[in-house]
Parts: sequence; C-alpha cells; structure tokens
Amino acid sequence: MHAPCHDTISPYPLKIFSGSSHPELAKKIAQYLDVPVGLNRTTRLPDGEIHVIIDEVVRGHDIFFVQTGFDPVNRHLMETFLYLDAFHRASAHSVTVILPYYPYARQERMSKGREAISAKVVAHLLESMHMDRLICVDIHTRAIQGFFNVPVDLLSAIPLMAQYFMRPEFDNCAIVAPDLGIAKLAGKFAKMVGKPLVIIEKNRLNFEETEVVNIIGDIQGRQPIVIDDVIAGGSILKQIDALYDKGAVGKTYFAITHPVLLPRAVKLLDADERIEKLITTDSIPLTAERMSPKVEVLSIAPLLGDVIQDIYTGRSISPRMLWA
Amino acid sequence: MHAPCHDTISPYPLKIFSGSSHPELAKKIAQYLDVPVGLNRTTRLPDGEIHVIIDEVVRGHDIFFVQTGFDPVNRHLMETFLYLDAFHRASAHSVTVILPYYPYARQERMSKGREAISAKVVAHLLESMHMDRLICVDIHTRAIQGFFNVPVDLLSAIPLMAQYFMRPEFDNCAIVAPDLGIAKLAGKFAKMVGKPLVIIEKNRLNFEETEVVNIIGDIQGRQPIVIDDVIAGGSILKQIDALYDKGAVGKTYFAITHPVLLPRAVKLLDADERIEKLITTDSIPLTAERMSPKVEVLSIAPLLGDVIQDIYTGRSISPRMLWA
Amino acid sequence: MHAPCHDTISPYPLKIFSGSSHPELAKKIAQYLDVPVGLNRTTRLPDGEIHVIIDEVVRGHDIFFVQTGFDPVNRHLMETFLYLDAFHRASAHSVTVILPYYPYARQERMSKGREAISAKVVAHLLESMHMDRLICVDIHTRAIQGFFNVPVDLLSAIPLMAQYFMRPEFDNCAIVAPDLGIAKLAGKFAKMVGKPLVIIEKNRLNFEETEVVNIIGDIQGRQPIVIDDVIAGGSILKQIDALYDKGAVGKTYFAITHPVLLPRAVKLLDADERIEKLITTDSIPLTAERMSPKVEVLSIAPLLGDVIQDIYTGRSISPRMLWA
Amino acid sequence: MHAPCHDTISPYPLKIFSGSSHPELAKKIAQYLDVPVGLNRTTRLPDGEIHVIIDEVVRGHDIFFVQTGFDPVNRHLMETFLYLDAFHRASAHSVTVILPYYPYARQERMSKGREAISAKVVAHLLESMHMDRLICVDIHTRAIQGFFNVPVDLLSAIPLMAQYFMRPEFDNCAIVAPDLGIAKLAGKFAKMVGKPLVIIEKNRLNFEETEVVNIIGDIQGRQPIVIDDVIAGGSILKQIDALYDKGAVGKTYFAITHPVLLPRAVKLLDADERIEKLITTDSIPLTAERMSPKVEVLSIAPLLGDVIQDIYTGRSISPRMLWA
Amino acid sequence: MHAPCHDTISPYPLKIFSGSSHPELAKKIAQYLDVPVGLNRTTRLPDGEIHVIIDEVVRGHDIFFVQTGFDPVNRHLMETFLYLDAFHRASAHSVTVILPYYPYARQERMSKGREAISAKVVAHLLESMHMDRLICVDIHTRAIQGFFNVPVDLLSAIPLMAQYFMRPEFDNCAIVAPDLGIAKLAGKFAKMVGKPLVIIEKNRLNFEETEVVNIIGDIQGRQPIVIDDVIAGGSILKQIDALYDKGAVGKTYFAITHPVLLPRAVKLLDADERIEKLITTDSIPLTAERMSPKVEVLSIAPLLGDVIQDIYTGRSISPRMLWA
Amino acid sequence: MHAPCHDTISPYPLKIFSGSSHPELAKKIAQYLDVPVGLNRTTRLPDGEIHVIIDEVVRGHDIFFVQTGFDPVNRHLMETFLYLDAFHRASAHSVTVILPYYPYARQERMSKGREAISAKVVAHLLESMHMDRLICVDIHTRAIQGFFNVPVDLLSAIPLMAQYFMRPEFDNCAIVAPDLGIAKLAGKFAKMVGKPLVIIEKNRLNFEETEVVNIIGDIQGRQPIVIDDVIAGGSILKQIDALYDKGAVGKTYFAITHPVLLPRAVKLLDADERIEKLITTDSIPLTAERMSPKVEVLSIAPLLGDVIQDIYTGRSISPRMLWA
Repeated sequence: MHAPCHDTISPYPLKIFSGSSHPELAKKIAQYLDVPVGLNRTTRLPDGEIHVIIDEVVRGHDIFFVQTGFDPVNRHLMETFLYLDAFHRASAHSVTVILPYYPYARQERMSKGREAISAKVVAHLLESMHMDRLICVDIHTRAIQGFFNVPVDLLSAIPLMAQYFMRPEFDNCAIVAPDLGIAKLAGKFAKMVGKPLVIIEKNRLNFEETEVVNIIGDIQGRQPIVIDDVIAGGSILKQIDALYDKGAVGKTYFAITHPVLLPRAVKLLDADERIEKLITTDSIPLTAERMSPKVEVLSIAPLLGDVIQDIYTGRSISPRMLWA
Repeated sequence: MHAPCHDTISPYPLKIFSGSSHPELAKKIAQYLDVPVGLNRTTRLPDGEIHVIIDEVVRGHDIFFVQTGFDPVNRHLMETFLYLDAFHRASAHSVTVILPYYPYARQERMSKGREAISAKVVAHLLESMHMDRLICVDIHTRAIQGFFNVPVDLLSAIPLMAQYFMRPEFDNCAIVAPDLGIAKLAGKFAKMVGKPLVIIEKNRLNFEETEVVNIIGDIQGRQPIVIDDVIAGGSILKQIDALYDKGAVGKTYFAITHPVLLPRAVKLLDADERIEKLITTDSIPLTAERMSPKVEVLSIAPLLGDVIQDIYTGRSISPRMLWA
Repeated sequence: MHAPCHDTISPYPLKIFSGSSHPELAKKIAQYLDVPVGLNRTTRLPDGEIHVIIDEVVRGHDIFFVQTGFDPVNRHLMETFLYLDAFHRASAHSVTVILPYYPYARQERMSKGREAISAKVVAHLLESMHMDRLICVDIHTRAIQGFFNVPVDLLSAIPLMAQYFMRPEFDNCAIVAPDLGIAKLAGKFAKMVGKPLVIIEKNRLNFEETEVVNIIGDIQGRQPIVIDDVIAGGSILKQIDALYDKGAVGKTYFAITHPVLLPRAVKLLDADERIEKLITTDSIPLTAERMSPKVEVLSIAPLLGDVIQDIYTGRSISPRMLWA
Repeated sequence: MHAPCHDTISPYPLKIFSGSSHPELAKKIAQYLDVPVGLNRTTRLPDGEIHVIIDEVVRGHDIFFVQTGFDPVNRHLMETFLYLDAFHRASAHSVTVILPYYPYARQERMSKGREAISAKVVAHLLESMHMDRLICVDIHTRAIQGFFNVPVDLLSAIPLMAQYFMRPEFDNCAIVAPDLGIAKLAGKFAKMVGKPLVIIEKNRLNFEETEVVNIIGDIQGRQPIVIDDVIAGGSILKQIDALYDKGAVGKTYFAITHPVLLPRAVKLLDADERIEKLITTDSIPLTAERMSPKVEVLSIAPLLGDVIQDIYTGRSISPRMLWA
Repeated sequence: MHAPCHDTISPYPLKIFSGSSHPELAKKIAQYLDVPVGLNRTTRLPDGEIHVIIDEVVRGHDIFFVQTGFDPVNRHLMETFLYLDAFHRASAHSVTVILPYYPYARQERMSKGREAISAKVVAHLLESMHMDRLICVDIHTRAIQGFFNVPVDLLSAIPLMAQYFMRPEFDNCAIVAPDLGIAKLAGKFAKMVGKPLVIIEKNRLNFEETEVVNIIGDIQGRQPIVIDDVIAGGSILKQIDALYDKGAVGKTYFAITHPVLLPRAVKLLDADERIEKLITTDSIPLTAERMSPKVEVLSIAPLLGDVIQDIYTGRSISPRMLWA
Repeated sequence: MHAPCHDTISPYPLKIFSGSSHPELAKKIAQYLDVPVGLNRTTRLPDGEIHVIIDEVVRGHDIFFVQTGFDPVNRHLMETFLYLDAFHRASAHSVTVILPYYPYARQERMSKGREAISAKVVAHLLESMHMDRLICVDIHTRAIQGFFNVPVDLLSAIPLMAQYFMRPEFDNCAIVAPDLGIAKLAGKFAKMVGKPLVIIEKNRLNFEETEVVNIIGDIQGRQPIVIDDVIAGGSILKQIDALYDKGAVGKTYFAITHPVLLPRAVKLLDADERIEKLITTDSIPLTAERMSPKVEVLSIAPLLGDVIQDIYTGRSISPRMLWA
C-alpha cells in the first residue's frame, strides 16, 4: 500500500497563536520554528468582560495556542475558553493548548472535604471547550494527566536545570526537597546530577505559611540546591535557616521551574545574603517588578518548539519527556 | 394511588449559599424566605487563584447559589464553576444558580466572524459543571435560554418598574427605545404603561461608542422615559440630545434593570441637569463610588424569593414571568 | 516546516447529496461547482415510515447534504437524521448540512411557559446525529447559532436583494419593518440601500393573526419596500393598509427571503393591486400552485456554491456573511 | 435505619399526558388508574410545523407520556421530541414514554449497506431528548432494548392473545410463523397454547412484496393461526394459499399485535372467505376506514396501567414481561 | 476543484497491532497486506493486573487492532480498553478494532429481567474508550450493530463455508438450523447452496443444556449439514440423534464460524462416528488441546485483509458483506 | 417552609449487594447495619463469559455494591460493569460502588510514554456505566479522586492502624516510608503516632524488583514500623536489611492497608525472624494459602458501615476522612 504523499504526519497546515498572558514566549517559540505568530486580538471591555477575535483564516489548520496560568489567572482561563470556542466555530482542524504553568495545580485533591478539585475543574472546562491536546511543563502532580481524556504531554525543565548544576563548582552540593511531597522529583534530580538527597519535613499552617519540623538526611558540610516546581510567596526561602542549623555550608541555590515570584518573595530573595541564585524558566513572564539580579532564567521555548515540530511531523516525543 | 406525604414538591431540604459577588442580595433573599445563608468561604490566594470551601453539610439538599455577573466577572465565573464542583462532590441533590445579571449576554452571536459566542461559552461551562437550573433577570436576548439544556427561568424587573411609572405624574411621557434591538421589549413596556413608543436608530462605532442617526416616532412635547436592560459606560445618557432636538420636554427618566454603572457614567448622570432619575434594581451591587442621589434602586429580592418558594413547593412560576 | 502538498485545505474529496425537499437547489449548486449530485434514494413506505440508502461510496469524503425546512417539515427533518446516520455509518469524513430555511426558527424561546424551545430541539437533534457543520440563510434569530456547538455559517440573501433595490426607480422608497422584532435587520437593509426606515408596531392575536397598532417613522409620500425573513400565510400583505393610511404612495414591494407562501398568501398577493412584486429566493421550492406572476425569485445557489468552495479550499468566508 | 415514610417508591406525584397519535389509549389507561389525563395542546401551524404547550404544572412530577408510532409517524416523533423538551424545561422529575408500537422497528440493522439503522436513530433521538424510560409492546426485535441506555420495558400482548386461543374450538389448530425471523416468537406462542408450529419460508422481493418458497412443518389437516407482530399492507394475508395447498383445513385466524392495517389490507381481509378473524390490539388506533367486522381488538390499556402502577409503587414488573 | 493528491482515501499511514488473544491471526493479516505487525507489549503483573505499552510511534496513524473474544475473555476485554487508551493518549488518528468473535454476543437482550444486556455493555465500553470503528465476523444478532454509534462492519464467513459445500458430494444434503433463532441465517445459507432447510425446535433448560422437542421440515433420506455461529460446550453435537430418528442418512457435517470448542466438545466430536467433520474458521485460536482431526479450519485472514485494504483506500466494502 | 417528613436524607430505601470478589466483607457491613445482603447471582459460563442477575426488586432503591480489586481483577471489574448495567436497567435510584482496594491504582500516570493511564481507564469505565458514587480506602494516589466527575469518598485505615501503634510498647519505634512516593502519607502517620520519620530511597529495576540506594533520616537504635498502602510480592520485606545495616533494633512491624500478599510474600514473611507482624485490613479477602500467623487483620467493615449510614442519613462524613 502506498503511503500518503505529504512529509508531515498531519495533512493540515500549522499556526501559532498567543493568549494575552505570555506573548513573549509565543514569539520565541514561533521564531524558533521560523513561523509568524497568528493575528488575534483580546479586548478588555470596561465592565470587566473580554472580547476575543481571530484576524486570519484558521479553517482546516492545526492550531497551537500559547497561554500560561498567571495572574489574573481567572481572566486568562476565561480568555482561553473563549479562544477555544472561536477556533472551533472558525473550523480549525485541531487546537493544542500550550500551558507551561498549569493553574490551580496545587488544588488537585480535596484536602479538607467539601472543596472543589480545582485542577480537575480546569481540566474539565478546557476539555469541554473542544481542546484537542495539552502541553504542560513540570506540573505539580503527574496524575493531573489522568484528569483529561485528551492527550497531555508533560514536559519537564528538570534536564535543562540539571545540566546547569553539572558543573564542577557544584560538586559539594546536596539536593534539598523542601517538602515530603516533592521528594520523589527531587530524588530524580539528585540522581541525574549525582548528589545526595536531603528532605525537609514541615507542617502546613495555612494557605501561605508552613513551619519546618525536621531535616531528614544529611546536609552537614554541604551546599544546598533546593528543588521545587513553583515559587510564589517565598516561604521556601525562609526554610534555609533549618538547613544551616544542621550544618549546611556555602550559599544556597534554588532551582524552581515556575517563577510566580510575588514581590515579597523577590524582596526576601534580594535581602538574604545566604542565597546565591534562583535558577528558573520563562514558563511565566517575569515582569520588571518581579525581577532580581539573583534570578537567572533558562528559556523553555526551544523545548516547546521541538515538541511542536515532533508532534507535527509525527516523530516520537517520548525522549523529550521526564518519565516517572 | 396515594400521593407522597411531604408538602413540598421536592423531598429534599433547601439551602441558600452566596458567591462573593453579591452577598447582600443573598442575605435579602434568605431573610425574605426566613432561612439562614449557608456557610462557605472563598479565599483569594496571593498568586491570583481562588480556593472555595463549604462549611456545612449539603448532601441531599437542594442548593440555591446566588452570584451575579459583575466585575471581576471572570473571577466570579470561575468561583461559580468551583462551587458547582464542590457542591457536586459533596453530593448536593441539585444546584440552582441565581445569576440576576448574566455575564457576556451581549456577545450572544458572532458579530464579525471568528469570534466566540461568549454567552454560549458561559452557558456551556455552567452546564458542564453540573448546574441543574438557572434563574436570570432581564437577559439581553431571550434566545440565550436555548443555549442551555437545563431549565432556565427568565424573570423580569419590567413589571416592577412599570408599576413605578403608572403614577399620574408620568401621564405625558413617551417610552424611548435607545436602539432598534431593544424596540420589542420597550414596546412591551410602553403597552404595559399605556404610552407611545419612540425609537432611536443609531450606529455602533466600536465597543463603547455609538452615534444617533435618527429618531423614529414622535417625541415632540413629551417627556422621555428611556428603557434598556443594562447601563455601563453611559453612552445612552448622551443620546438624549437628539430627543430634545426633536422636541422632547421635561426631564428624562431612565428605567434600566442592570446598573453596571461605571464611574464615568455616574459622573455623566450627576452632571446632566436634564436627567431626573435612573430607576434600577439591585441585580448588581451598587458600591459607594458608583452610587448617586439620582439613582433609585428597586429590590428584586422578593421576586427571587417568591420564585424559589414556587420552585420548591411545585407551584407554577409562569405568572411571574414576562413572556415574549 | 513543509506545508502539506494538496491544494485544498481538506485532504478528503467532496460530494454533494440532496434530501427530498429541494432537489432543484442541490442540482443548481452542483452545476455551479461543476460536480455531479451524489446518488441516494428515499423511499416512503406505505405505513408512513421512510427508508434511506446511499448508492455510492462516501467513506472518507466531505459530504454537503442539501435539505430545506419545508412542508412536510417533520418528515424532511427525520429524513435528515436518517441520512446523517447513514453517512456516519458509511464512514463519511464529515457532513455539512445546507439548510437554507431553518425550520422551527420562530420557536426560538418560550413565549408562554411550559413550551418547547423547538428551534433548539432541531439544533440538538441535528448535532446529536453527528452533523459537523450547518449552513443557513437569513435565520430568524441570529442567536440560534449559539444553540449549536458545531460551526454554523449564517449566510444572508440581504445583499442580493439590496442590489436589486439600488436601481434609480426605487429612489423615493422607504424601507418598512413589519414588526419591532425585524427592526434591526431592516435598519441594516435601509442603510445598505440608503433609504429611511419605517417600523410597524403590531399586536400578535394568535399564531396566525396580528393587528397593526402604530406606524413609527415617516412613510408620507414614499413608496414602501417591506422587508422580512419569511412570508407564510400572508398577514404581512394585509398590513399595508396602515401604510397607505399614513400617506404611502406608489405600489408596494416586498423583499422576503423565504417564500413559504401558503396558497392563501398567493391569492392575497395576486388580488391586491397596490402590491407590485414579491422579491424572494429559492431557499424553498416554489411549487406551481404557490407561484404567481408577481413573484420574482433570486437564486441563492451561487452564494451557496461559493461558500462550499471557500470552505473546501480554506479561504475566508467572512466577507460573504452579513454580520450583526 | 428508618424507611422513608411515603408508600409509593417514588416521592414524586404522577401525571399522564397524551400525544396526538392515540388519545383514546391514554384516556383508557388513565381511567384504569383513576387519574385524569393531563392538559396539553399540540397546534399544527399552516406551514407544517407544530407547536406544543403543557397547560398544567409538571415541576417535580413523574410523567407518563402516551404516544404511538402511527402515520404520520415522523410528525408524531417530532411531537414527542418537542414534548420531551417542554417537560424537561418545565422541570418534570422524570418522563416515561409509553410507545406501544415502536416506529421504524423493522429497520433495526443495515440490510444492504450505506443505510441508516433507523430504529437506532429513533432510540438515539429519544434518549438525547432526556427520556428517562420507555415502555413498548411486542417490539420487532428484542435487541432494540440494547439501543438504549435508559431502562426499556418490553411488554407483550402474546399472553393476552394466547388466552383467546386456549378455548376448545381451537384444539385442531397449528401455529404458523409467516417468516423465519418470527419463528422464535411463534414457537413461544405455540408452546403457550400447546399446538404444533409450522413455518413459512419466503423471499423478500422488495419493501412490500414477498413470495412463499416453502412450508416447513406439517399443516396437513389443521386449521391455521398465523402469528406476527405487525400487519401493514397485508401481503401476509395472501400467503395462506400455500397453507391450503399443503392441506390446511378450516378458516384461518390471524393473531397480530399491531394493526397498522392499510386500507388495501382491510379490503383483502374482507374479501377472502377463508379468513375468519384478525385478533389484534389497540396499540395503534383503528380509524373507521381501517376497521372491519373481521377485526377483534383486545385492549392493552389494563396491561399498561398495571405496569405504570407497578413502576410507581416499586413492585416487580418482571412477571408481566414475556422474557426470551 | 482539484482532488487531494494521495491515492489512499486516508491521508494517514496505517499500522496493525495485536492484542494477546490471537497474535497468529494478526500476523496472517499483516502478511496478507505485506506490512509488519506493530510492536507492543502486554505484561501480566503478579496481582492479576496487566500493563500495556506501545513500542513505536503511532501519532497520526490509522491503527487496526486485532483481538478476539476468547477466554480469558474479561482480561482480553480489559486489555483492549487499556490499548484504546494508550493509542488515544499517544495521538493515533483512528483506531479500528478487529474483533472477529464478539464476546457476550448471546447476552444481547434481557431474557429474565434484572439482568445486564452484556453485549451492549461491551459495545458501550469500547465506544467510551474512543474506538472509531469495529469489524466483526458472523455476530450472533445483527442488531448489535445498532448498539454502537460508530461504524460497525459485520463480515461473514458464510460465503467461505458455502463455497466448501457447493461440491457435488453434498448434493443430497439438507441444511439444518439447530434452533429457531438461527433459522433465518440458515435459510440464507440453504438458498446459497441450493438445498432444503430443516429446523430443530428445542427447549433451553439452563445456560448449557437444551432438549430437542421437534424437527420442523423434512430430513428423511438426506445428509445433514448443521449451521450455527458458535460451538462451545457441544450440546449441538448431541442433537443429531433427533435427525437420525427422523430418517437422516450419511454422516453429519457441521459448519460453524466460531470454534470456542471446549475440551468436552472435542471429546464428543471425536467420539461420535456419525459426525464427519466440523468446518470452522480461525476467528478464535485453536489451541492444541482443543484441536481434532475432524476439524477443518478456513482462514478469515484474507477476508479481513481485503476489508482493511478497502477501508484504507476508500473502496466500497458492501460487496464483501452478507446483508440481511 | 416545611421540611420533608422522612428522617433519612434520601427518600429512597437502601439495599446492599455483593459482587463475587469479597462476599465476607459485604456480609460484615450488612450485619453492622442490621440489614440483609441483597440477592443476586453471578454465573461463570464455560467459555469464560459471566452472566449476572439480580433476584429482588431494586427499582427506586439506593444501592451499595461491594466489590474489591482483587485477582482475577479483570473479571471482577467486568462483573462490576455488568451489575451497574443491570441495576440501571432495573431502575435503581442510585448505585454507590464500595471498592476498598482500587485496582490499577499504581498505573495512575504514564511512566514511560505510550502507555495507558490504567487507573483512569477504570475510573472512566465505572463512570460511563452510570455509577453514582465511589467509596475507596487508602488509594495509592489521592489525585485519582479527580479522575472522576462523581463524588468519591477516600476513606483511610490509617487512624485504625495508628491506634494500634499508640501502645507504650511502641515508644521506641520510628516510622519508615519504604519509598519517596509514600513519604507524605508516612509523615502524616508519624505525626499521628508521635514518632520520627525515616525514608528509604530506592531504584525501581522493573515491575517487580527495586533496590535500596539510601536511607534518609535516622533509624539508629530504633525499632522500625514500615508503612505502605499495598503489599503484593513482598519486595518491601527484603528492604529491611538496609534498616538494620543503619542500626535499627528490635523486630520490624509492617502496617499496610491492602494485603494483596502473593504466596511468595507470605513465605518471606514467615521466614524472616526479624519481622514481628504485618498489621493489615480486610480490604481484600485473605484466603487460606495467603494467611500467616504473623498477619493481624483489622476490619474496615465498621468504618464502611458508618459511612453508609452517614451518607444515607445526610450527616457529614468529613470527620471520617483522612484529609491531605
């Protein structure tokens, strides 16, 4: 039997569009792939509603829509639902949402009773709006993948960051998991960079505050590299006291994929001399007031661009994943 | 055959809960029905996400959840989706959303191509989150009812406002429809109060601005009562020039159900001496900076309370509707 | 990245089929596109059931199925559902229904309570039978588009008819909206042909009868062109009395897209000497007994053919729409 | 644990409504249960559309809607879909459709390729319109039950008719299956009445005509009782020639549940002196022109009434079924 | 308009995979089509769970997955659901399941009340796991096709077997239907091979046992060819006593599509000298302990291969079907 | 407004049924609640299919169906799907599945690519078969709750087991998490019993084997209590070597909710003198060959009985949950 004649796996042309949360990332991905960003406009009306319109033909195209779960997160979600409707009614062949930072990922189970499973609500709403595929980076809980019926590609910036820490200057470091819940991922990272693992056991006091109750493992005489998926208010920064109490040496590095980085976290970061650097990614835009000289950003645009290309041409994307 | 023994039509007990957009309205409805407002909490997290929790048993209850489509509208929508999930997972028997002001109602069709039908997106998302019934007041387009598969009760504040204008002092008035699209509803109002109808024909220049191109009908020597469903930026206030050019007399009244009333509209209202009053409702909360001595608010809480009671006891609600 | 090699946007071949309500229109569209009409047969069994069969391969084809909402409308709807099932089970790649006259469009909301929203029922049934896209002409209420989750293209014959009335002989005309509900569309038509707008305000007495209660705007000394979407029983024809009472001059033209034209309407049309012509389209077949020398039919086949071609080749169809 | 206090299994009150196909049957069932028939109206509009309205409260009621699959079958189906929508939007607690004669039951599989499975289309449409349960009588193929996800009760008039033929005057009869497809049901009937089974093997020439090719089994010296589920055009009546050729004696009885009975069948029935009687039911109304002195009608109203009562009070209905 | 350029109807490449129930059949089909069998692995974990993985890219491919309904049937079904999930999440373009022996086909209706319609459960589960199409051979009841919304191709091995019996040595045979339920299919077979039909009427005593109560038709002096769709426990083999009692001559042939053939059936087959042969197919693998010298297997691989080719290239498959 | 009169929250009566995997547990729960176990039968047919039937009325009842995910797990799953269908078709008001050990819970994400998310497949299939609610105990990953749209109650046997270890004889113990993934739950347990936490870091070699690579935390001089959710093959038992290497003292206790306990695990358990006891539950039946004198079973029947009672009477079940 003869094979189809086109050399992409999809017989439909590809276009990249951007939501209003992170146009820089969309532009970088498009540049990496050498295609233009599609034309569309989001208007914010004075009563708080938004209006979306697509300014070029999308009928019969495979669309990749770039958005991220950043504040104002509910408006960005609603914008995504509206664009999904607009693409669908304009007869796009498929829409893949690229959502490097998945919002509400930490509400992925009921923690007290009579709550929403908010991460599932997000999944359910995206899927009900005809999303065909989702691409995320370092999602808080891998099982969120199973909240969806459509394919979800869970990329990871961990290899990118591991590469950074392979340099000899980090030979005396230990990898620190700031929470029992992150222990497994941190263990994977530790193995990748060949360093010991130390785990902080802590209590959650409320949505924003926690207290360290124990250090499990040996940080004595070692320089800490603290691993996490998200940094928001910065309570993680305060926990290094406990590490130095237990004999940690040198300055601390943080390797955290998603820089939600509230202003008060930036202040803490800048103020604490024991902190050398925060290595992070552009999964979320770093606005000026949230930037600091201690922050070093590794771009995930090439990773996302490669995956789009693989999807479009039908190559395996498995090697780009961090399986667990 | 024996009838069931309870004297409500529903065998399940009823509870009223409130979203964070309009707790005063929820309280008024609950007081009218002599029941307490249920306990629940919405927390806004520092990264812009919200968290919802219900603080009392809802299993096997018929829930009425009061929310309105007010700014920040997307957060209030997302809060509604999260509560719908929480009620569902907590095994509520049914959830009726009371949404007196339906958000995105003016985006109920594609007006240019490759847009979302945003009002349908709202409907689709609510329904996909297991909402069992919806109650709205003076929705922009009645056909939005057909966007839903679940029952939707379209209440109207028009009879409430018509009653206001039945007094003899309004004998010399004409009812003014500020747009061809509102002509039908205004005609119904005119018939109810027994006054002639005048229609303003205008051009929409963009999302916020319009220009009057014609006055259809006879305003000569009559005092205007301008009818509409929503007042937001207040461009409607500026259109009375054309009425006075055509011979309108006396001061103008506005009778508009939903007071979105942006601050600049309040300023226009206060400044124009030809305007006597804006008669409106509490379908949307009137915060202090959006209030004016010219605004008179008629409460819809008794209307909503009566409908809840009718639904719960299985009486016909048809007589409370404004059919068209 | 290389684009796919075929020069249509769809990689699947196209076929046009016809239901039994309007084979002439299907034939005209097919001729316009220079393709044959597909082979299929509908058999009416003696007990009133129908049986449908497709007589050529449709697997992997993009199907355009031409039907219209004409009497016996329920049989034609059921025939459509059966063909949608047959196309689906025969593995057609997609089915677009071309339904120039959408049945039940005037039952698009509950007008009294405890009714069906029949236009939504039609939408829901079509969609549940795997229809992929719908194409309609001058649908009664644009919001019906939102009854569907699939793309719906709302074409209009208004530009076709506007062109007809651009000739100098119509310079002294006014555009007449026979109802407040049609005022907006008539306003658009008036603007297109550069003529003033006059609106008839009337009361609906029952399903078939109405009475004129007012003429809003100035018809004095002007020749009427009455605009509407459908003419059925012809009550609209009787309403011109009121126009002449208010000083209308010359003979009246009607420009109405869908000629349901019951025999009694034809009789009225032929009998009234003040009526010059009814300009209409072939969205519904005009059988011999419903034809009159006063009726002039503009074909919508080229409009439909162009849209099919645009859809199939991935060109924008927005310019062919009449947005609102 | 305490049991609920009402003595029906359903806590909701019951109402019976009738579609326009068979109001007599609805009335008989209601009389049997000593409840009134609910108030509703179906209006046929001049353009062939219909309009339905329910004239009493149904909120929170268990509705039983009586309709049958009789000509004009497509209009009756569409009427059913519209009432299902109306009941749903009026917040009925549940709707059971009583459809004694299931339309399109003989199109329950593809018999040639590229056809619809019309019986499934009917099932799919009913279910998509929120029907909660279906009750049928002697459906052509029992597997149609599996076309539905909701409960379907397949009643049978076979025991009713078997009782008729238990009288001694029928001692010398044989049960005749007029087709291999009905052999199994006829076998069950034969066993019930304790008589031998004879099968007619025939060829289907087209939708309406068949030819007998063989008689399997021994009719010699026996009086025929021909069993079938439906009689429409009456070709079955002509097949008795073959029986008499093979030695049948006495006059022939037909026992057929559903009297579609086209006029030409009545003519055949009346004309053929070898035919004594057609025993049938009121699953379909027998209009005057389709009636004959040879037709004897057994009412299924008591059977249906008993089942409604059983469903409503939670008793087992299994004993009323004819399992297979 | 230009046709698409590829010469298959599907623009996507094809791959064949095998479940663990019948890898030989998958291999034969693949060889017939000259393509490799795809790489995948099913691991049975010690706690009884299974784990599936696909070892090559399937994104954007049309997958044909070969499985059959053989013991352990529930594990094979679950394996199929898991592979359907894996193919879907790996972005296969479509998945066709080739299930020559459909499990649970004999539970296609409720035979006693309060049972499952197990054949529908299988259909419902397959469809809910995103299966796009199903291919079966000689399914017990054709109406099972209507349990599905997706296309189902019902192939038949009857023509294959009919060809076998066209040889002159079978001139004196009669076709025997071992049950009233199989009479219709047996009649079709009889017509195909030009021989008379004889029907066994029997009682079902329980799941496994039946008793013959009558022979309908004339077997006197004829050699029996017994037709059925499945042979499991072999009770069918014991029923030939009744045929010889009524004068059957020569040795009996069985022509039965699906050789479930429990060991005790093989024993019966080998022991009874009146049985000459069982002609069957490889729709189910014949393991060594279930094989006998009296069994002759006709392969359905070419039939399945031809159909795959037809589907993939868009040719009509109707001529390969045995319609009814 | 008057409250409904019955004193359960559900107006429907309750019945408990058992699948074939764990009838003892169903019986214990029923005894605890003082209700009988409902009558139903599962028959295993010789070809491996099963047949289910319910032997008493379930119409309008709230059903609790007890099953567990034990070997043969796929047959038990299929049995559950069949019973769900049977309950649904027999018009049960609701069905809650009690599945103390959720099968396939460890396949809750893709660990390598192109796999199924098997735990989601199970969730999806249960939900698609009309399951209304699920109750599980100590599920491997809490996020599985979000795989469902229906309410899922995640109970825990942890408090039951914690109580056991509160006795003074365990004062010198440390809680051991045998894997980074279980660290969080073990931490919760440790806090509950007031003991330090030690974590084993290990490598997974394949489905069944792992190797210890590190002990994080301090076991020196402490007696180990190893916590986990499931024990199957017993590799966990071999890992205590590493604990004793690091200075553990005394005999080891295991506290593991689900005793899958393959025979080889029992052998290991019995043979190793350093192991004192395995404390487990009856979430899975412990057949004779899988029992050992070292195994002590705490029954979860009272926990499940209390939750059923709470659900049925509308009391909060939150206090019975172990939130996280």
